Amino acid sequence: MTGEEQIDAGLLSPVRAATPVERVVSDAAWLRAILEAEAALARAQAGLGVVPRSAAEAITRVATSGCVDLRAVAVAARENANPVVALVRELTRCVAERDPNAAEYVHQGSTSQDVFDTGAMLVSQRALRLIRADLSSAIRGLETLAHEHRDTLMAGRTLAMQAVPITFGLKAVGWRHLLVDARERVSRLLDGGLPVSLGGAAGTLAGYLEYAAPEGELSGKGRARHTNRLVRAFARETGLAPQTLPWHSLRTPIADLASVLGFTAGALGKIAVDVLTLSRTEIGEVVEPGPAGRGASSAMPHKRNPVLATLIRSAALQVPALTAGLLQCVAAEDERSGGAWHAEWQPLRECLRLTGGSTHTLVELVAGLRVRPDRMVRNVAVEAGAVTSERVAAVLAPLLGRARARALVADCAGRTAGGGPEQAELLFAALAHEPATAGKFSLDDLVGLCDPAGYTGAAVHLVDHALGQHRPATPKETVPDPAR
Amino acid sequence: MTGEEQIDAGLLSPVRAATPVERVVSDAAWLRAILEAEAALARAQAGLGVVPRSAAEAITRVATSGCVDLRAVAVAARENANPVVALVRELTRCVAERDPNAAEYVHQGSTSQDVFDTGAMLVSQRALRLIRADLSSAIRGLETLAHEHRDTLMAGRTLAMQAVPITFGLKAVGWRHLLVDARERVSRLLDGGLPVSLGGAAGTLAGYLEYAAPEGELSGKGRARHTNRLVRAFARETGLAPQTLPWHSLRTPIADLASVLGFTAGALGKIAVDVLTLSRTEIGEVVEPGPAGRGASSAMPHKRNPVLATLIRSAALQVPALTAGLLQCVAAEDERSGGAWHAEWQPLRECLRLTGGSTHTLVELVAGLRVRPDRMVRNVAVEAGAVTSERVAAVLAPLLGRARARALVADCAGRTAGGGPEQAELLFAALAHEPATAGKFSLDDLVGLCDPAGYTGAAVHLVDHALGQHRPATPKETVPDPAR
Amino acid sequence: MTGEEQIDAGLLSPVRAATPVERVVSDAAWLRAILEAEAALARAQAGLGVVPRSAAEAITRVATSGCVDLRAVAVAARENANPVVALVRELTRCVAERDPNAAEYVHQGSTSQDVFDTGAMLVSQRALRLIRADLSSAIRGLETLAHEHRDTLMAGRTLAMQAVPITFGLKAVGWRHLLVDARERVSRLLDGGLPVSLGGAAGTLAGYLEYAAPEGELSGKGRARHTNRLVRAFARETGLAPQTLPWHSLRTPIADLASVLGFTAGALGKIAVDVLTLSRTEIGEVVEPGPAGRGASSAMPHKRNPVLATLIRSAALQVPALTAGLLQCVAAEDERSGGAWHAEWQPLRECLRLTGGSTHTLVELVAGLRVRPDRMVRNVAVEAGAVTSERVAAVLAPLLGRARARALVADCAGRTAGGGPEQAELLFAALAHEPATAGKFSLDDLVGLCDPAGYTGAAVHLVDHALGQHRPATPKETVPDPAR
Amino acid sequence: MTGEEQIDAGLLSPVRAATPVERVVSDAAWLRAILEAEAALARAQAGLGVVPRSAAEAITRVATSGCVDLRAVAVAARENANPVVALVRELTRCVAERDPNAAEYVHQGSTSQDVFDTGAMLVSQRALRLIRADLSSAIRGLETLAHEHRDTLMAGRTLAMQAVPITFGLKAVGWRHLLVDARERVSRLLDGGLPVSLGGAAGTLAGYLEYAAPEGELSGKGRARHTNRLVRAFARETGLAPQTLPWHSLRTPIADLASVLGFTAGALGKIAVDVLTLSRTEIGEVVEPGPAGRGASSAMPHKRNPVLATLIRSAALQVPALTAGLLQCVAAEDERSGGAWHAEWQPLRECLRLTGGSTHTLVELVAGLRVRPDRMVRNVAVEAGAVTSERVAAVLAPLLGRARARALVADCAGRTAGGGPEQAELLFAALAHEPATAGKFSLDDLVGLCDPAGYTGAAVHLVDHALGQHRPATPKETVPDPAR
Repeated sequence: MTGEEQIDAGLLSPVRAATPVERVVSDAAWLRAILEAEAALARAQAGLGVVPRSAAEAITRVATSGCVDLRAVAVAARENANPVVALVRELTRCVAERDPNAAEYVHQGSTSQDVFDTGAMLVSQRALRLIRADLSSAIRGLETLAHEHRDTLMAGRTLAMQAVPITFGLKAVGWRHLLVDARERVSRLLDGGLPVSLGGAAGTLAGYLEYAAPEGELSGKGRARHTNRLVRAFARETGLAPQTLPWHSLRTPIADLASVLGFTAGALGKIAVDVLTLSRTEIGEVVEPGPAGRGASSAMPHKRNPVLATLIRSAALQVPALTAGLLQCVAAEDERSGGAWHAEWQPLRECLRLTGGSTHTLVELVAGLRVRPDRMVRNVAVEAGAVTSERVAAVLAPLLGRARARALVADCAGRTAGGGPEQAELLFAALAHEPATAGKFSLDDLVGLCDPAGYTGAAVHLVDHALGQHRPATPKETVPDPAR
Repeated sequence: MTGEEQIDAGLLSPVRAATPVERVVSDAAWLRAILEAEAALARAQAGLGVVPRSAAEAITRVATSGCVDLRAVAVAARENANPVVALVRELTRCVAERDPNAAEYVHQGSTSQDVFDTGAMLVSQRALRLIRADLSSAIRGLETLAHEHRDTLMAGRTLAMQAVPITFGLKAVGWRHLLVDARERVSRLLDGGLPVSLGGAAGTLAGYLEYAAPEGELSGKGRARHTNRLVRAFARETGLAPQTLPWHSLRTPIADLASVLGFTAGALGKIAVDVLTLSRTEIGEVVEPGPAGRGASSAMPHKRNPVLATLIRSAALQVPALTAGLLQCVAAEDERSGGAWHAEWQPLRECLRLTGGSTHTLVELVAGLRVRPDRMVRNVAVEAGAVTSERVAAVLAPLLGRARARALVADCAGRTAGGGPEQAELLFAALAHEPATAGKFSLDDLVGLCDPAGYTGAAVHLVDHALGQHRPATPKETVPDPAR
Repeated sequence: MTGEEQIDAGLLSPVRAATPVERVVSDAAWLRAILEAEAALARAQAGLGVVPRSAAEAITRVATSGCVDLRAVAVAARENANPVVALVRELTRCVAERDPNAAEYVHQGSTSQDVFDTGAMLVSQRALRLIRADLSSAIRGLETLAHEHRDTLMAGRTLAMQAVPITFGLKAVGWRHLLVDARERVSRLLDGGLPVSLGGAAGTLAGYLEYAAPEGELSGKGRARHTNRLVRAFARETGLAPQTLPWHSLRTPIADLASVLGFTAGALGKIAVDVLTLSRTEIGEVVEPGPAGRGASSAMPHKRNPVLATLIRSAALQVPALTAGLLQCVAAEDERSGGAWHAEWQPLRECLRLTGGSTHTLVELVAGLRVRPDRMVRNVAVEAGAVTSERVAAVLAPLLGRARARALVADCAGRTAGGGPEQAELLFAALAHEPATAGKFSLDDLVGLCDPAGYTGAAVHLVDHALGQHRPATPKETVPDPAR
Repeated sequence: MTGEEQIDAGLLSPVRAATPVERVVSDAAWLRAILEAEAALARAQAGLGVVPRSAAEAITRVATSGCVDLRAVAVAARENANPVVALVRELTRCVAERDPNAAEYVHQGSTSQDVFDTGAMLVSQRALRLIRADLSSAIRGLETLAHEHRDTLMAGRTLAMQAVPITFGLKAVGWRHLLVDARERVSRLLDGGLPVSLGGAAGTLAGYLEYAAPEGELSGKGRARHTNRLVRAFARETGLAPQTLPWHSLRTPIADLASVLGFTAGALGKIAVDVLTLSRTEIGEVVEPGPAGRGASSAMPHKRNPVLATLIRSAALQVPALTAGLLQCVAAEDERSGGAWHAEWQPLRECLRLTGGSTHTLVELVAGLRVRPDRMVRNVAVEAGAVTSERVAAVLAPLLGRARARALVADCAGRTAGGGPEQAELLFAALAHEPATAGKFSLDDLVGLCDPAGYTGAAVHLVDHALGQHRPATPKETVPDPAR
């Protein structure tokens, strides 16, 4: 393929174009990972005496040499519904050129799905590590923002309307909390260990055992021992975890990846939709970072679009649907499915690279996000009296009853668009007419009650609490649970 | 990018690797289509006297010359959340090198989404034409199969169990019917016309009008006339349909594509799951076509996997989820969305190429499908009496009452595994004991009743009806289409 | 079930609670529709002489009498994976009580899926009619808004930022356009005709033919004739369309419904997200209609939430995923699927009632939407010079070159937050320093250029065009439909 | 609502009709759970001295008395886009009737989402407990099957074709493994604790704090202390876990539920598709349990449909799409979303009841599944030589080279349909002609090699390993992970 015929250079997916994850999950990387699995399998078998060491070394050398033509393998995959058959043929040919004896030991006892799935786990592991590192960077960035804006007053917004005041610090720790949740779930996969796949033709490892003892002299115990040793050796050679059972059609590892990536993309999406809202011309409370030219419009010289949030949101709109596609494939028939396995490959890669690109984009967004406390204060005053109406009603309720208190507050709010003090004056006049409140409140009292800055509740405490609690690495997740 | 770094060479998607549609929807093709849209726009404006003809010609020449670096544009897209800004910059630079005056007229009055969406419609149109042609081929293939096996007896299966007899012809016309439905829906899009996109910065075409009359001397009528003429000229230059309104955030064309592709992929999937079932070792009623090596297992020399059906099913499991992702983006906010638009690009391309690859694969599957009437007959006899039990019960019901008839038939079926004649004998004995039926049926009568071949109902008629009705009735879809 | 045990009274779905569609698609309505199908089948068979007229009449009377216990049938459905077996048993029992002879003719020759699917089409038809009527109401409401606000200036917004001016009329015709598209697609289904389902045990109609001629004396032609007549008679008796082929596992009708409902819900969602944005406290350009108490918060007396838009958006977020679920079931195996059919029922009903409830809600939203031109004008002036920057750059480009023009405009926009005239003054000063423009523009010229009201492009024309074009062109959809 | 107007009596969802989970997640149960949350909140506040004990008791008494009319609340929810406003009004009215003073304390300081989400967690907790218990029952059932059929020979099947032999025990432990994975994930949610929701109007708990100290005399520390105590007390009173932060728009708990339920439904679906396949008339290796009438067809007396597997599969086809819908709502804007929250309710309930009903159905399926070793053995012999071809090729490869060995085996397999011994004879003849093998194998050797029973690899070991390893409760999940 020449450049002009390139199938996917990232043109339709700027959220991940040229981000580190793109390279890690590319077709070329996937092919290399399958070849790594082939080499690791040969070495694992060599460790058990089933393959000559020299053959395993030759296979390893060739597998890492880039001898296989990616496009040729991809096209040949149509003949077998998977690329491994052609890849093994090519690999065998290349090995044979260098060491004809070794060629006999390529893919010995194995099946396509074993090496493909093992390669997929290697790719996923690498992508998850990038995602975890970027999540940690973004978390640190949000911690800085939260500290800095712990007390920065702004409007809390619900159902699109201003509700009661919050601080920007609270918003930032909320965002951070989602990222911590995402990182916890990513770490659970990485630390629990993505497994190797080793089942042979139908999950009995019969082929591996046959080559281990062609004359079939292995006892039951011997088979058990060889199976366990081979799984462990393969895990060691790849850096993955041992499997519990062959999982050709027991797709928990894929489902777990799908769920974690779907959640992570969604969590990033929450931050993105908030940034888009706060960036709106009429709100203007945050400004995306950007070198000259970033976010420029092709038509409008004045415009600076929130492009990073846009990219992140575009991923959040794509990944959950892919998660569904992957979960659906858990219902795979037989020992290996005709179709459900094959339907996983692209969606899995897409989940990895969209989420990875999105996380990478978020790091940049968070690191340079400009917060505008002036606009926040101005906005919170837009509808004077509104954001403190809950409070005033609460104060008056014990005296007037809750219903009467609400009605009186709503009535005052409806009679002016003026700010906190103006609202206080209206209330002062109104309360003087009520027997239950007459003389109970000074104008100063009411000015205080109508001050948004005085009604942020536990916002500051929650910021401190969140930053304090989470910094020393999530113990909840790891303590033993004796009651279970 | 060197080959080794290739992001997507089809490795993870054999259902479309190297099929014609892959090339038509590749990043390179998409870039070319956007450039075509830029050139067509310049020519359309030239036709209205807004751009010098020579400039439009220069832009057209450069746009089709491959001057723009795909990967560079893809990466630069991160700065603007879409690739068009960088593409216009590159295109302008290239035009300027050849004709500095012309460079001023590149992308005049336009906005990124106008040329991107127009390019996307060009790409979709080309892919849909391939899909339509392949659907027609597959339809013809199924007609041949249906004619040939109009009377070929086989078991009808429901909830996984044999039910009553059908003919393979009926199954084939059923498959065909789904493809005809799919082709009808594809044709509706192609014939109704995928629209150009022309809105300018926020859907008012203000930029286009400004350049048409910089001093603003256009009357209201003048604006209307220029708008209409520009839309029609752009449609003519691209070969697309005129739009009704700018559709930056009115995404009917995308939703229609998503729905039609989701249905088409699903329809193909129905055929695939049937072929997979009929291919099962224990059923063996059809065999996929294949040159030597097709469907070979990497481990098992004996095996011939139904790989074409597997590939087609893999697409059917992926596309519906992508359809959901695209429909979800219809709820796009504002005059142009920050994210919902961007989330359409990859899923749309994926729907096109998965469905296109799947259809292409189906043509091959249908053309060479080997049907085995011998196995069909053997299978229908597996549970003797079973597939005719409905009939026997229906015949006895008027005499014995429906409940008694059903019980008697079920009892006979439970007492032997033997074939039609054996079943008839059991029935003969049983009916002799019933006052209402004693002497009413000869053994020959019952042998006839228990013959599956005599109980295919309207199967043959439905085959004739389906083939007869559809062939002449849909000339639109089957006539050659030289203009396209 | 007592009230306290009610499974679904709409508590979790206010978007459709107590709207007309809820009743039309309820379990009780669904049950009635299946019973209607049973009665219609008996009458159709009576018309062909296969069932005595008196029996068909008895079955019809009983089927419409409410004799069947809904909950008992629902629970019994677990024994057969569908409710029809129990329903037929109950219906037969009830008929037998009144007319023992007639009981023999209940469900004659039929299969569960025939009457269930026919009932589902009846339910869908009724729901679609409600949806179509509500779409027409909302379209009329939007036409009124568009006429009224044809020239009402407001900011066009893209990627969350103000872009160039539009009019509210343009926004309203855009919304309307989506509804017209939706109505067109709904009408296509209603007018094309949702089909009856008639296949018998495995799609051959063998059972029906057997009862038509128990002794099997029907010739091939006789079978064809009887099949055709039975299908047409069943269609006539139900008010549905004839089927082309039995469609037990050829699910085009379901896929079409899923697609149309997914698009319609999404289209309504686009209006909802726009209303939510325009309702934002800081934007305040529209206010949802509402009697006292509507949109009240349980905590904040001042608050008026945009609840109708919220409800509509909640449906738009649910339906596309259900569409995917339904499209996925198109890949149904065998003559009748074990699971794929059963997985359609709830999602189909949910799509109907969410979309129906959403449409009903939209009618109310549109009818009473309060538009605030004062806020629109104020907002468009927020960032002076911004929304006309494209225009000024376009005017200057021929004189200064495009790049220099853009830079100069961006520079002026960056130097003040002031309004149109202030911007004009800055430009006047700047242009005086440029040799190419010095003396070319008076201050008045520039004040005109910087006036947002003068830069709405073809907005007004597009409003006229959209309203003019669509009103007369679609008579089919707006004429009363007495036959239905 | 009378019975005839019932919206949902389970008619369209037999997989959960009348199963225990249906009652636990019904609208009535959901309403009760919200009322429980209101009562628990009052008691928690009473414990902190903010509400009089007597008032909390009165609220609790009334809340559990069923005073609120479900349908009235559901319909009124349209006015506020959620049912809580009306529910609080009703509850307040009922409390006021009994204790006017107490009425002032209903829902004090709270917001709709706090009590709704807390109620949702109570409902989810109850449903998950049912699911966990049923998973454990099914796991035990599969352990029994696995023990019993540890050595039962059957064909392993891949891509729909027989591959190599396995044992049914291996299949059963595979199924069990998925259920163990599902149970682990359900337990993680239950043991980690579904959280209460406590945020007040916009997540600052300001309302709660205001009522705690109306004069605002709480210091920062005082607010922190009160917040922490209130959260803990609310958790204690409800039996849920404390929240870390208010999560009105931080939807990790919903996403986790969605993922776990999506996976669980899929895992059950895998078992269902296997049972459907093995039940096929032509395969017949398992038979679903069933009392008389179960699985009966409305038309065909002989038929016994695998209805339990059908029901389970129907859930597996529905839940993943709903998971996507829920994950998509993680990207919720603002402090509380206008629409994304509201779009969660029904899909969450549906995920719970479909998965719960499916699990309940599985228990019955597993407990009574009839396994037919005779059919398994007969089927494995269908294509003689096929299922051992991998083995024979492996044995011959060292002598003949891999390619030649494969070719020879494939050739022999193609020359007969005969069984193991017949295959051995063909091989014996063929090997005699090869210099490398002549005289190396006796006919007895080859008969042994061609015996499927001798080629089950590690199947039996994997059964023992899986049953042994998992029985003592999944330690991997709970060990501390110092490297993290």
